Order: sequence, then structure tokens, then C-alpha cells
Amino acid sequence: MSRHPTDTLALADFAEVLADEARPLSLRWFRTPVAIDIKSDDSPVTIADREVEAALRRHIAGQFPDHGILGEEHGRDRLDAEFVWVIDPIDGTRSFITGWPIYGTLLAVLHEGAPLVGVIDMPALGERWIGRAGLPTLFNGQPCRTRDCRRLADAVVYTTSPDAFDAEGLRIFDSVSRQARSRRFGGDCYIYGLVASGHVDLVIEAGLQPYDYLAMAPVIDGAGGVITDWQGRALTTGSDGRVVAAATADLHAEAIAAIGAAGALAL
Amino acid sequence: MSRHPTDTLALADFAEVLADEARPLSLRWFRTPVAIDIKSDDSPVTIADREVEAALRRHIAGQFPDHGILGEEHGRDRLDAEFVWVIDPIDGTRSFITGWPIYGTLLAVLHEGAPLVGVIDMPALGERWIGRAGLPTLFNGQPCRTRDCRRLADAVVYTTSPDAFDAEGLRIFDSVSRQARSRRFGGDCYIYGLVASGHVDLVIEAGLQPYDYLAMAPVIDGAGGVITDWQGRALTTGSDGRVVAAATADLHAEAIAAIGAAGALAL
Repeated sequence: MSRHPTDTLALADFAEVLADEARPLSLRWFRTPVAIDIKSDDSPVTIADREVEAALRRHIAGQFPDHGILGEEHGRDRLDAEFVWVIDPIDGTRSFITGWPIYGTLLAVLHEGAPLVGVIDMPALGERWIGRAGLPTLFNGQPCRTRDCRRLADAVVYTTSPDAFDAEGLRIFDSVSRQARSRRFGGDCYIYGLVASGHVDLVIEAGLQPYDYLAMAPVIDGAGGVITDWQGRALTTGSDGRVVAAATADLHAEAIAAIGAAGALAL
Repeated sequence: MSRHPTDTLALADFAEVLADEARPLSLRWFRTPVAIDIKSDDSPVTIADREVEAALRRHIAGQFPDHGILGEEHGRDRLDAEFVWVIDPIDGTRSFITGWPIYGTLLAVLHEGAPLVGVIDMPALGERWIGRAGLPTLFNGQPCRTRDCRRLADAVVYTTSPDAFDAEGLRIFDSVSRQARSRRFGGDCYIYGLVASGHVDLVIEAGLQPYDYLAMAPVIDGAGGVITDWQGRALTTGSDGRVVAAATADLHAEAIAAIGAAGALAL
């Protein structure tokens, strides 16, 4: 599979244009009294989610009419295309609707199914990570690197919420995170950015959807980290939503082993 | 007990001067590799905590040499004074050391033991709440109000971390928060500000110290909310560190009753 380096840069530039476009669209609704609908999966959605995604889809379809699109709110188009855009207009809608500024807009570009470009944009913070396959990850335009943490006992671990795990997953997370130096809760997409910038060492999550995790892969990879599912496999649209992102390969290997020891291999 | 309205405004103004002074002092160390010491209570502390508090103590002692000071890092002076300043230089040190921008500097002024002024300042976000007894709470200079949420079933509940509770406290929090519309984790002092600004309805926490919760009282009171310990008693330096902050008196009463029903009255 060729990686089209020219395409990578052009697609990354266009992803930044989209992120620039999305920022004021979500901020317009932030901390205003928006109606909250509950979707069939029990997650909330607002007009902000829908408007951001609709605008980005229109823009992508105008620029790249043969590309596919997979979005959280408005479904799937041409997923068999060579390039597919993956959109989470507001990652952390539960945060967004509680006035919490740590919510993000996520964009990924898949090439033949593999994540080629990923953007984590934080509209209310004015912060952005962009990952491009084979190139250094950028944080607000500057290269960033993960921290050199190689042992679980030295690691700072984050997860968004204990409520995101099923009972077995929570037991596994609890076992692994208690072997770490410290553990913290909260963050959604932001905690992957903190790994890429070297402030956090490990993220362990479950219950994620492809639009939640695919943008993370190029961001973590390009910063020197490793991101996979709980069994160490590369993330694809077909992954099971259990994700481990680690600052180093050593730490990743130890985390995968600890997850396995805690029971995940029985999956 | 007289409340010295003139003093209240003058002390609130000076508290803002102190918060302005503290911002660049903590931001200077934010996202830099600082050494982390672990205190006897197992909580982390850095040079940023110590420098901010030392600077604020010097400034207070110069301006009000007869006032008392209670700080997280540098101890207690003249706690029998009529006015006592309470300082948490970095509330959320665990957040601060992981590059997480939701950390705060907290200041309270007690008059004869009762909170008269409270400041929640968020250096990395550029956000500030200031509460003054008998006056409207200000968010970035503008009056703010809690939301009109009166029933636990309608409430968005926050707490910083499940790890902050002891086993009984976690059982109580779990029982009460599952009766709410939704529950979220993370935030430290910030979640009290979100209550004051009407984005969050209820905060239930435990394991707090006086420098963690005393600044919150004027902020919540002046925004129309109610803040007490888990048994409904006003917060003082002698409270047990279990705190409930609610958007309305009705919601507060229901939360206290639910806590009681879940077992807190056996304390």
C-alpha cells in the first residue's frame, strides 16, 4: 500500500481548513441553552454536533466528491472509496453540554482503511494536534513528542470515565491503573493529545466508536507513541472500541501484558 | 456578627490583585518538567505550589499584617485574627502536573470564621469567579447565576474523582449520582464555578481540605446556590471535607436527603 506523501500533506492542510471552519460553529453554541436529544445508544446530541458535521460534510463533498465520509451524526457515504473522512463534530458532547471547555472536533482521513491524517482540535482552548503518517505530529504548529516513560509503575494513566467500561472492562482498567504511578479521570480526546505532547503517559479506554479513536492514531504515532486495541492490534474501523495509547513501545507492551493478565485475553 | 460591607469590597478587590499576581507565577511552570514531591498525605506538590503561596503570603502580610493566613503549603499564622486568608496556590496539582489546564488558584477571606470573599481563578483558561458575601458572584467581571434545577432526577452531577472517596463515601456518591440525569468526573475547583455559572447543577465531593472548599462558599452563595457539608451544615475550617454544592435550595435539600438515605447519617 503506497502512502501518497503528497496527498498526506494536502489532505492534512485541508483537514486544518476544516478544523478552522468548525471552531466558531461549535463555539457559537457553547454555554448556551441548547436542546439535548438522546440517541438510540443513550448518548446526547445537540444542534451544535449536527451543524458542525453538516458543514464539514458539505465542504468535503465539494472538494473531494469521490471521497467517502463516516460521521457520528449523519452516517456513511462511499466507505469503499480510496480515501474516507471520519468526523466526530463534538467529541465530548457530555462535556460540551455542561460548559466544560475540554471538548474536541476530531477528523481523520483513512487511506485504504488505514489512518493517514488525524486532527484533534479543541475549539474552546485554541489548541490543535495534527498527525500525518510518517511525519512528526504538530501541536499548534510545532512538533511534539511523547515522554520517555517505559514502565507502568512510572506512568500517569488517564481515562475519560469509569462509566464508559462494562463490568469486565472496569475490572481490567482498575487492575492495570492501580499498578501505575497515578490515575486520573476526564478528558475525552484531549488526553490523547496530552500523551502526544509528553504530559501523560498512558490512556486506557473502552466503548469508543471509530470516529472517537481513528483520529488519534496518526497523532500518537507521529509523536513517538503507540496506539492499538487492548490486544495490541492496529486500529481500524472494525476495532472493538477498546483502546490503549502509550508514550513508548515499552510502556505499551507492558500495558498490553497487564491488560492480558487482568483478563482481557479471555475476550 | 457584622459583615463590614466596605471591607468586603476592599478585600475582594485585593483578592483579585492577588489572583492577578498568581497567574503568571503558576503558568511559568505549567507544562514544564517540574520535580514532584509527595507530601505526608500522599498528595503531590511542586515548586509552583510553593512559589505561588509564598508570594501571596508576602503580599498579604505586607498589606494586612494583622490578618491571619492558612495556606496549603506553608502552614498557619494568626488563625485567631478577625480576618483570615485561606490559600490554595494550585488546586488540582495532580491536574497541573499532567498538563491539564483545569487547575485553579483559590483564595478565601474569613471574617470571624465565616467565608466573606472567595476567588476561583483558572490561570490557564483566563477565567475567574469571585464571590462576596451578600453580593452577586462575578464570572470574569459579569454577574452569574446558577441554573433553575430543582430535582435530582434533572441534575448534572460532577465529582473530581471516584478515588477521592473512602469506601462508604463512594457507595453514597454512587447511589446519589445514579439518581441524577447524568454524572461526570474531573474538575477540582472548576466544577464549582460551573455550578455558579449555571452549566452544572450539583457537585458532591469528599476528602477536601479547608483551602479546597472555603473559597467556594461565597461563589456558590452569591450565584443563588447552596453549599454545605453532607449533613447540610455551613462550611467552616472545622468541616469534615465532605461537600455538596447545589444550584438551588430544593435540589440541595433533595441531595442532602438522598445522601442521608444512602447512609451518610450513620457518620
